[in-house]
Amino acid sequence: MEQEVLSHPQEQERLLDWLESEVTGVLDWLSGYSEGESAGVTRLLYSKPWLAAQQGLAGRMTRAGLETTFDEVGNLYGKLQGRQPDVPSIVTGSHIDTVIQGGKYDGAYGIAAGLVALAYLQKRYGKPLRSLEVVSLCEEEGSRFPLAYWGSGNVVGKRSHEQIVTLVDQEGMGFGEAMKACGFGAGSARPALRRDIGAFIETHIEQGGVLESEGLAIGIVDSIAGQRRVRIELVGEANHAGTTPMHLRKDALEGAGLMLHLLRQEAIRRGAPLVATVGKLQVSPNVPNVVPGGVQFTVDARHTDDAQLDSFCSWMRTTFTELAEQRGLSIAFDEWFREGAVPLHAALNSRLERICQEQGIAARHMPSGAGHDAQMFGGHCPTALLFVPSKRGISHSPEEYTSPRELAIGVLVLVELLYNLGYEEGELHA
Amino acid sequence: MEQEVLSHPQEQERLLDWLESEVTGVLDWLSGYSEGESAGVTRLLYSKPWLAAQQGLAGRMTRAGLETTFDEVGNLYGKLQGRQPDVPSIVTGSHIDTVIQGGKYDGAYGIAAGLVALAYLQKRYGKPLRSLEVVSLCEEEGSRFPLAYWGSGNVVGKRSHEQIVTLVDQEGMGFGEAMKACGFGAGSARPALRRDIGAFIETHIEQGGVLESEGLAIGIVDSIAGQRRVRIELVGEANHAGTTPMHLRKDALEGAGLMLHLLRQEAIRRGAPLVATVGKLQVSPNVPNVVPGGVQFTVDARHTDDAQLDSFCSWMRTTFTELAEQRGLSIAFDEWFREGAVPLHAALNSRLERICQEQGIAARHMPSGAGHDAQMFGGHCPTALLFVPSKRGISHSPEEYTSPRELAIGVLVLVELLYNLGYEEGELHA
Repeated sequence: MEQEVLSHPQEQERLLDWLESEVTGVLDWLSGYSEGESAGVTRLLYSKPWLAAQQGLAGRMTRAGLETTFDEVGNLYGKLQGRQPDVPSIVTGSHIDTVIQGGKYDGAYGIAAGLVALAYLQKRYGKPLRSLEVVSLCEEEGSRFPLAYWGSGNVVGKRSHEQIVTLVDQEGMGFGEAMKACGFGAGSARPALRRDIGAFIETHIEQGGVLESEGLAIGIVDSIAGQRRVRIELVGEANHAGTTPMHLRKDALEGAGLMLHLLRQEAIRRGAPLVATVGKLQVSPNVPNVVPGGVQFTVDARHTDDAQLDSFCSWMRTTFTELAEQRGLSIAFDEWFREGAVPLHAALNSRLERICQEQGIAARHMPSGAGHDAQMFGGHCPTALLFVPSKRGISHSPEEYTSPRELAIGVLVLVELLYNLGYEEGELHA
Repeated sequence: MEQEVLSHPQEQERLLDWLESEVTGVLDWLSGYSEGESAGVTRLLYSKPWLAAQQGLAGRMTRAGLETTFDEVGNLYGKLQGRQPDVPSIVTGSHIDTVIQGGKYDGAYGIAAGLVALAYLQKRYGKPLRSLEVVSLCEEEGSRFPLAYWGSGNVVGKRSHEQIVTLVDQEGMGFGEAMKACGFGAGSARPALRRDIGAFIETHIEQGGVLESEGLAIGIVDSIAGQRRVRIELVGEANHAGTTPMHLRKDALEGAGLMLHLLRQEAIRRGAPLVATVGKLQVSPNVPNVVPGGVQFTVDARHTDDAQLDSFCSWMRTTFTELAEQRGLSIAFDEWFREGAVPLHAALNSRLERICQEQGIAARHMPSGAGHDAQMFGGHCPTALLFVPSKRGISHSPEEYTSPRELAIGVLVLVELLYNLGYEEGELHA
């Protein structure tokens, strides 16, 4: 499904202009909540700028006429109460935390889009049938404490207070202590776990260059890739670079070099959506005139099909083991991270596809190679994830950028979907 | 020239027993002069243990009946005056300094061998025709200050006080200041430069595994390899490991991996004595889930033939540039170190070869991939360099080891050569 952006009717143009000014207004304002004076946005979980941002957002939600509540871990909800109070809510949003020196769109865009969409829908159409909620999830990045998806994970029951007991940040502050300092923690507010969510919709920047390179406005995510992360250690023999003839060497770095070249070749051969990355590599002793005796490197492999991902990892293990043996190197594998692929909701995606067609918005289906809050909701309730383009695919950087019009088109699609789910009669997930 | 060790006549056996006990005695004693309590030997230029070792050696030289003098940079000579005082001296020795946590043989062996050889020759044959000298050169490793061959370089006029003006050690102490603290420096003693050396003979451990792997006792070095050291920088594009499809990547590390694999292949194809090593490699940003945007690595290439070495480096430049272009990477080369090959003296080597044959000692001709004081003397006077085996090729480590018998065989060959040059009539270098 790829098509050109059609000419917009005048009304759509006016709406996009308004959405553009609203959503960029919220994003610019939110980006002011950042630690220190350095470039980009740094808003770590339970930090001062994080708390100020959540409180500021609560104020904006209240002024927009939403019922505003925090849960016990600091997730913030703004609710537009529906006329049928006992049916599950339609929830949209993303995370408020950032990486260190991140951009102003990652996470924040999903919250801003939800806030603007709900404000528009309420102003234009009044009370919905089903309740609509925007959520500012407290944490997704894992940047302050070594645990990610704390916000969405608590909502769906995949995170718990037992998991954080021993976790500390770089300054040695405990996870629970930091939470308490912001006024949150077990029993401080309503429980985070929710069983009354009828659908979760997340809008997010792509963080990759596919939409931009294909000139498309919207990515409808079919599946969030599964991930395997493996640490590989090669041990050879450190030797004098001048006195050890080539045939007497056990050079761990040369072995690693060939491995990572073959890894790329094989990933290309197997084809998208498989990606495989050696991002980190360390050499020992790492001295110009010593043959490297040891190398450690990481492999990050992702695919939306877990079976194909496992097959690739198994190829890797066999091939690398053979290469190591040929060179007299010992090799050890440590798969320290494993996350299954999460398919998103086909019926919701069909609605998104229809909306884009009706609105003349150029879109495509695509996988998400990055993890998102949507993957936590994916096993819990019908979930959709919507991408807008990222300039040059850059993310987790002050350089992160999506144009105001691209942001507005994403909000427009969200508005249409929320209208469809919240205001129109009919089955929720047909 | 490879042959088995023949049975030694009884006299040779007795002599070897004596040389073994003498040379290991000196080496064990010398290894006691070391900084701190850590493993191995640490004797940095102009440090306290360095000064104590030189003073201790001066005492031993004097007691062995040698005329003992320091020069102005701290090189220590012990001279067995010849009957023909105006003909050039035959000098043997090596360096007294070590790397940090080095072994007890590197450098020290050449001094101990010279001291034992001169003591034996004097005791056995009395005054030689030509003067024989043993030298404990003050510095070779470049481990304290970023300048190597300070000892031999001053003797042959390739080092000067102008070169050290701005040099400081890791604690910020100046080179000249450290020298002065030990009582040395310009004008403190006789000038270091010498024009009265008729031949220089260095005995040294191989620091490689060739002699051991071939079961040989002596390596006669034909040439010290020339060296080229090049820093290579690749710049690609750092990207998200999950969201950047393989075909949109500019992965600097994958490019480097293939380069260093091909470098080894080509070095093997071109054959010994060429060696090429990527010893140091650094990745940026070096994070598991980011496609590497930059890589810096070093290439250390050595060959005894400068033309062949240049040809290899030129192949490397062309091949790496092509590979980088194919991948959309930029590449920069910086050759920061270049040293020509130094051929050693053919006539001296013929004498060594004859001595080994006569003594039934298994020997071979070989290149030296490592640098040695002999390469400074090589352009100054007829020079020979003699290797004894290194266990598992290990050097610059507390694990450095050569057996007492192997050490003694090296001293025996040195004794024979010094006798030949110092006591026998005839042309010095025919």
